[in-house]
Amino acid sequence: MSASPQFDQVSVVKAANVYFDGKCVSHTVILADGTRKSVGVILPSSLTFNTGVPEIMECVAGSARVRIAGEREWKTYAAGESFTAPGNSSFDIACDEPYHYVCHFG
Amino acid sequence: MSASPQFDQVSVVKAANVYFDGKCVSHTVILADGTRKSVGVILPSSLTFNTGVPEIMECVAGSARVRIAGEREWKTYAAGESFTAPGNSSFDIACDEPYHYVCHFG
Repeated sequence: MSASPQFDQVSVVKAANVYFDGKCVSHTVILADGTRKSVGVILPSSLTFNTGVPEIMECVAGSARVRIAGEREWKTYAAGESFTAPGNSSFDIACDEPYHYVCHFG
Repeated sequence: MSASPQFDQVSVVKAANVYFDGKCVSHTVILADGTRKSVGVILPSSLTFNTGVPEIMECVAGSARVRIAGEREWKTYAAGESFTAPGNSSFDIACDEPYHYVCHFG
């Protein structure tokens, strides 16, 4: 969750992860200690993501409105801001501009 | 241009590169020697890319039809196949499924 604009000394999987017909595209990054994260972007859309493990979504550019399952309010997250989605749950996310993120799992 | 499914010991820029309203999304990868490449995906579409430096486009999953500027024929490139686009030129690319690629510059 550093403010560095890049990950260093990592592995990156060449093939992308494509969700929602490409409204969300990510690449998997593997840190030296084996931790997996993903770097991705959500294009202008309104989507619902299901979570398996908990996820921390760190915005690195752009912004999005987010509503965690069970919450009433939408909150806006911009560059440098993060939200946590619980495991085995879901969250709604909507953006009018590309929302660039790092997803931290577990 | 190895057949490895991932790059190791690299840096990856967290923010994505978004082209053509998201029809093409890539992330920049920086090798230990400073060489920059990108890992990306082109979603089903028909696009024209302009090149600055020459580019070798290596398909890692999916397939696409490609026509280099000045050529008459379209050729199909699937996983493991590459094409070279000259610098200061352009190429047309069309795909019906996500075309996952590594772009090697220079």
